[in-house]
Amino acid sequence: MKIVTVEAPVNIAVIKYWGKRDEELILPINDSLSATLSTDFMCAKTTILASPSLKEDVFWLNGKQQSLDNPRLQNCLKEIKRRTNPESPILNWNIAICSVNNFPTAAGLASSAAGYAGLVAALAALYNIEGDITGVARVGSGSACRSLYGGWVQWSKGITSTGEDSIAHQIAPLSHWPEMKILILVVNDERKKYSSTSGMKKSVETSDLLPFRANTVVPKRVEAMKEAILKKDFETFAEITMKDSNSFHAICLDTLPPCVYMNDVSHAIVDLVHQYNAIKNSHKVAYTFDAGPNACLFLLESEVDELLSVINYVFQPPTDLNNLEYIRGIKTEPKIIKEELKLSFEPKQQKPGLLKFIIHTTVGNGPRIIEDPKEHLLTNEGLPKDL
Amino acid sequence: MKIVTVEAPVNIAVIKYWGKRDEELILPINDSLSATLSTDFMCAKTTILASPSLKEDVFWLNGKQQSLDNPRLQNCLKEIKRRTNPESPILNWNIAICSVNNFPTAAGLASSAAGYAGLVAALAALYNIEGDITGVARVGSGSACRSLYGGWVQWSKGITSTGEDSIAHQIAPLSHWPEMKILILVVNDERKKYSSTSGMKKSVETSDLLPFRANTVVPKRVEAMKEAILKKDFETFAEITMKDSNSFHAICLDTLPPCVYMNDVSHAIVDLVHQYNAIKNSHKVAYTFDAGPNACLFLLESEVDELLSVINYVFQPPTDLNNLEYIRGIKTEPKIIKEELKLSFEPKQQKPGLLKFIIHTTVGNGPRIIEDPKEHLLTNEGLPKDL
Repeated sequence: MKIVTVEAPVNIAVIKYWGKRDEELILPINDSLSATLSTDFMCAKTTILASPSLKEDVFWLNGKQQSLDNPRLQNCLKEIKRRTNPESPILNWNIAICSVNNFPTAAGLASSAAGYAGLVAALAALYNIEGDITGVARVGSGSACRSLYGGWVQWSKGITSTGEDSIAHQIAPLSHWPEMKILILVVNDERKKYSSTSGMKKSVETSDLLPFRANTVVPKRVEAMKEAILKKDFETFAEITMKDSNSFHAICLDTLPPCVYMNDVSHAIVDLVHQYNAIKNSHKVAYTFDAGPNACLFLLESEVDELLSVINYVFQPPTDLNNLEYIRGIKTEPKIIKEELKLSFEPKQQKPGLLKFIIHTTVGNGPRIIEDPKEHLLTNEGLPKDL
Repeated sequence: MKIVTVEAPVNIAVIKYWGKRDEELILPINDSLSATLSTDFMCAKTTILASPSLKEDVFWLNGKQQSLDNPRLQNCLKEIKRRTNPESPILNWNIAICSVNNFPTAAGLASSAAGYAGLVAALAALYNIEGDITGVARVGSGSACRSLYGGWVQWSKGITSTGEDSIAHQIAPLSHWPEMKILILVVNDERKKYSSTSGMKKSVETSDLLPFRANTVVPKRVEAMKEAILKKDFETFAEITMKDSNSFHAICLDTLPPCVYMNDVSHAIVDLVHQYNAIKNSHKVAYTFDAGPNACLFLLESEVDELLSVINYVFQPPTDLNNLEYIRGIKTEPKIIKEELKLSFEPKQQKPGLLKFIIHTTVGNGPRIIEDPKEHLLTNEGLPKDL
């Protein structure tokens, strides 16, 4: 019997992945680049047990048993087993997988990247896989490959049809730019969700602007972004981050029917950030939006308190927090907005709660194997401990 | 003394103008194509009087005296006078201009195209100008050049630096496709307005996608659109119209800071149209949005009643109409939504009045000189009659 538990991070792309050149192998049409976030506040925790006494493979996700008959999951398992020493007895054992994520519920925050990164990191430890495993996570969920490293990570699109060169690598560790902080503004939204998988497929099929973005705009941006990160040039980093988020949502809008992920509150946050930067006479904050209305703001530690004072002035916290924290994650000292800043911003009087809550976090490390047996999510019989 | 009164139409672009190659001469970076709307429901009416007894040039717009010291207006006047027979005594007379538009107030509907088309058409009649005058209207307000013809009109970007080839021409008259109707859905909006002049300047300066749209995407679309109009192929017309509206707003979003003209209600209208077309299994309705949140829907006459039944089901009319009509323009028979359609749409329960009102109109003719002296807006002394 073997058991492994892993905690894996989410990542936030500053150069976005949008569009596949191969649906099956999940090969993207452009490189992307992300920051891995600390697992302290958002992570997926996965335990995998392999045992000759398990009667069949089983899978629990967030407390519910799931079918393993999922092509993406099967692709990961197949690839891991292909790479395993063929004489290893573990290949004949069944496995139990148990995964939970600690993201606040109803936040609409993508969890598949952390989930597949944790799954693949745990499988790799269990089956003693050596070498790059980001290509394995990629066939589970494209952007999961970026969650296998900490710090700043690039996913190269690769050029081969088999995808062995479509892998992720770290371009700078967490320690390179520890001042970088992240605020995730979780936005209230009532619309139905478009899945990003079908959205990007529709974009590839119908957007006339998409090939130009992928082939011409993004390659230059990736190089400029890497240089900005390596030089810790926040001004350039912020400009490219905002431009690439806007360019990605422009492609979504250029799709037929359009995929609209940002809403009026998202755009009000964009306005707030540009207004804040205009007052500061430089880019002090950058926004980026994924396939949903939530804003992810990048800023240096020195700017966090002041920006939060403005956000709290413009967007009033919900009145029905029920003792939940409004600003979660790294502790901050609540500050009152400066009088001179008040003149430049207008509070949204309509209603409190346009933002559900805020997560204050930082860049973090890659997946971590947890040695303490108490932390395993499964019993030695392969049953979730919380059942 | 000479006096001329003109009624001029608005136009709605189905291939959008966005971006200038020359700010002063108003030369665009791509061709655009529009439908001229009937003056029965939306028009600008302009009277110009030239008289040796006027002490100075004067200008009234919507009842208020304005300065003539406006570079765009002066450019129009200069160009008209340059083309006038130099021996004509009128060149030594002062003029009085009076212009009103009959657009519903607070509709946020662009009036400058109709205004400058009327001004230039009236000036041309007054000064006996022969030949093309669309290039004169263009230096007043770019898209005004398209309002000088009825029916379907193309504005060629031209390639010369002086702009003499950047003019409009009719590609089909109103009589070619009389079944085409237009519904303008006027959307409630609380945000500040970005001017389209500064918006398109920012787009040219900062959007990486814009040159590709202007140089590669639009030229193909213009040809395909002309063919669709000439063949009265509504399906293709609708698809290109929606794609080009989305592509234009994509460029606006790709601008830094982004120019966001559509809001959540605009996007709800987009969803409604795609849902309606999905049920009908073909494009029965096309949306297009200009630099604001209002939707302009193109559809054939046979579809108007049914689409309105769906719109009225999804968006409830405002409760504070104060005896104003909700659906203005061409009369319609109010229809109740069919039961089978109800299943596919969800009423916006939140609040009535997300749409302020609807204008039901049709494609129309170009500017018209009004001979009846009672219709002049000015007295023979050059004073507005309604003062």
